Amino acid sequence: MMKALIKEFEKVVGKDNVFQDETDRATYSYDAAVLEPVLPALVLRPTSSEALGRVVALCNEHGLPLTVRGAGTNLSGGTIPKTGGVVVLTNALNRIIEINEGDLYAVVEPGVVTAKFAAAVEAKGLFYPPDPGSQAVSTLGGNVAENAGGLRGLRYGVTRDYVMGLEFFDVNGDLVKAGARTVKCVTGYNLGGLLVGSEGTLGVFDKITLKLIPMPPAKKAMMAIFSDMNKASETVSAIIAHRIVPVTLEFMDNFTIRAVEDFSHAGLPVDAAALLLIEVDGHPVQVEEDAEKVEALCRQMGAMSVRVAQDAAERDKVWEARRAALSALSRVKPTTVLEDATVPRSKIPAMIRSIEDIAREYQLTIGTFGHAGDGNLHPTILTDKRNKDEWHRVESAIDAIFDKALSLGGTLSGEHGIGLAKSRYLEKETSRGTMLYSRRIKAALDPKGILNPGKIIGE
Amino acid sequence: MMKALIKEFEKVVGKDNVFQDETDRATYSYDAAVLEPVLPALVLRPTSSEALGRVVALCNEHGLPLTVRGAGTNLSGGTIPKTGGVVVLTNALNRIIEINEGDLYAVVEPGVVTAKFAAAVEAKGLFYPPDPGSQAVSTLGGNVAENAGGLRGLRYGVTRDYVMGLEFFDVNGDLVKAGARTVKCVTGYNLGGLLVGSEGTLGVFDKITLKLIPMPPAKKAMMAIFSDMNKASETVSAIIAHRIVPVTLEFMDNFTIRAVEDFSHAGLPVDAAALLLIEVDGHPVQVEEDAEKVEALCRQMGAMSVRVAQDAAERDKVWEARRAALSALSRVKPTTVLEDATVPRSKIPAMIRSIEDIAREYQLTIGTFGHAGDGNLHPTILTDKRNKDEWHRVESAIDAIFDKALSLGGTLSGEHGIGLAKSRYLEKETSRGTMLYSRRIKAALDPKGILNPGKIIGE
Repeated sequence: MMKALIKEFEKVVGKDNVFQDETDRATYSYDAAVLEPVLPALVLRPTSSEALGRVVALCNEHGLPLTVRGAGTNLSGGTIPKTGGVVVLTNALNRIIEINEGDLYAVVEPGVVTAKFAAAVEAKGLFYPPDPGSQAVSTLGGNVAENAGGLRGLRYGVTRDYVMGLEFFDVNGDLVKAGARTVKCVTGYNLGGLLVGSEGTLGVFDKITLKLIPMPPAKKAMMAIFSDMNKASETVSAIIAHRIVPVTLEFMDNFTIRAVEDFSHAGLPVDAAALLLIEVDGHPVQVEEDAEKVEALCRQMGAMSVRVAQDAAERDKVWEARRAALSALSRVKPTTVLEDATVPRSKIPAMIRSIEDIAREYQLTIGTFGHAGDGNLHPTILTDKRNKDEWHRVESAIDAIFDKALSLGGTLSGEHGIGLAKSRYLEKETSRGTMLYSRRIKAALDPKGILNPGKIIGE
Repeated sequence: MMKALIKEFEKVVGKDNVFQDETDRATYSYDAAVLEPVLPALVLRPTSSEALGRVVALCNEHGLPLTVRGAGTNLSGGTIPKTGGVVVLTNALNRIIEINEGDLYAVVEPGVVTAKFAAAVEAKGLFYPPDPGSQAVSTLGGNVAENAGGLRGLRYGVTRDYVMGLEFFDVNGDLVKAGARTVKCVTGYNLGGLLVGSEGTLGVFDKITLKLIPMPPAKKAMMAIFSDMNKASETVSAIIAHRIVPVTLEFMDNFTIRAVEDFSHAGLPVDAAALLLIEVDGHPVQVEEDAEKVEALCRQMGAMSVRVAQDAAERDKVWEARRAALSALSRVKPTTVLEDATVPRSKIPAMIRSIEDIAREYQLTIGTFGHAGDGNLHPTILTDKRNKDEWHRVESAIDAIFDKALSLGGTLSGEHGIGLAKSRYLEKETSRGTMLYSRRIKAALDPKGILNPGKIIGE
């Protein structure tokens, strides 16, 4: 990169916030997806809105590819830069600007850590529901860019459902304002809606306005233990069919149970074929009733036993165990491929059976867990990428999982994004028309193609 | 229009569905906004998806402006065609294709009437919350195009929050598929999000997938009567500050109360300065508790009396009275200008005071009612457009209302759309960057500018 341009960047963000060393650059060459790392030419860390906008404009002027990075927890390669490009870090843009208790919204900068924000909101008796698995480190900017989901999607929706307003820089560094601080806003195009989940390809977030809701006064969690995986997955549909919408309705197969227990010693039943982890919330009376109904339904559907958490500590233990699933599975083999195919929830039993069949057919170890209540499963293939033959079978298995999800009326990705990892599959689910339409938008908004190139729609 | 082209249209939609008579064309020259009618050259009524797509392609080929029309209840001129253009009616595309009780979604064609759909869903014990004022005749396609709101926005959000998937024709007549039948979907750009509220300017809807939720088991409505308008509006904030989120929290000033009572004889207190109409829903125990809390709060805040509806019939009466507000006000003078400025809900008292001041300053009759709970007020100016001097004052008053809403951190339009009526104000709320960004999208997706020209971003 030209010396003069680097000098310019140093002027904009300060010398201390321009990183050129190979070690620094290597740190930002990969994310949580199983993809080859790509070294950026430069890493920048703007510390103000103005600097951020100026960085975008300079990159565009010089045709430099630009990838914004929050915590890099992305699972589809959305934060893997382009060779010769710039990584822009948001971790210095981490102010919670406002939490408005009367009007139930908050305004944040993109680098605020999700869990920190959720805690700040909770301290005021309010609730920000989206809780992606990586919430302890992930940033709200990353969550919005990826439309992150989490364990509470069934009842509370995903990040998209909480973005009321968005200010972002277009590729020229001009500020675009979308949405409002009001529940209702139809002023202009829903650009916030377009930008949510656009993976950094259409603009760079400056400020995000998020909807908050009152904290539900009570909740109750339970664990239903099954000796038959089908019975567990059929219970998911049975609960919804009885018009109960739990906050969380998680599934774990035997392989995952064993891995988690080995890792966390939470007291999980290692002989169970499958577990459902369920939480209901709301008014205390409703919580009692729903919990009783869910417990009875689980037993009717064939659960061997149902353990209801007796207090907050027991409840937390249930969720810690669930949250440990990915870490626990990752320890088993060198390479962890966390898939994200999602089906209408009534198709969960069929999908789980198919994943088992696929594991057998391709002789692979697949641990399956995930958000069964909203149809969002995470079949996790444990492998070693260095084993060429096995890796080839992994790729075939992924194709088979996608095909099955689509044939069941599902989608390629529930919450992990398309990124680099799935862009070649996108047309299969949508249509030629969708690809062309999407590319027209991208070309119009980023004519030089510098905003996170290659993600979602390819290059 | 060329004879040959009309022949072509006749082939596509059938001779009986091509309307050229002036009377027919006049019927589709206006909507519910106070704007000059514009005669279309032709009105078409496709009866199948294929015909709809073909009509779009033909219009684009021939550079014919195309305005899709549901029920024409639009309040911002969104369905007023362009001179020489084509109006495409959706009323023959009115099938409810699927209501899926297990997976809680429905698939519909754009011409389905909102209330008919809500009733079909309710018959299955499910709930589709968006309830725009015109729901008895409005279509779901129109609701999605305008991102329609309604009385339940405070607790349940607006149309945007229920669109899970959208299939639409781009300007070439190619089918674009966005979203899915799953709660979670991050497959590709959120094109559904972009199209919601885009007022027919970016594509033509073919099929809409809508999210459903279980019907809340109980609800309770009440009417709080105030002798002081400020006290009524301050009660709105007090309720939310106590972490109660009613389904509906409506405000009506004395002028509106009198007009409604005169029209509907519902037994409204004509001497009250203001009314709040409030409904809470949920689990029966929670409903009782919330209703008691809300009633107590209203009294604490100075309500003269609070009437709690004792049964469904009384509850319906409350809402019929509220729903009659616009019709009732419309009888008072020849021209009714229904405004839609929206503010963060804590700013409702200030906004209502300002509307009173503006009415005085411009010597106008303004009846104010609306969805106070979500900050979405409908100050309604009663006038006679033929009175040039008064009309001039009306225009100035509208400007003043917008300025005030913006200065209170609000937005130009909560639920009525920008359409033709407010496009010249859009930049004032957003930014130059927003206008340019929006126009780049429009130009890329509709290069000849045939899709509902002039709406939102001007021409």
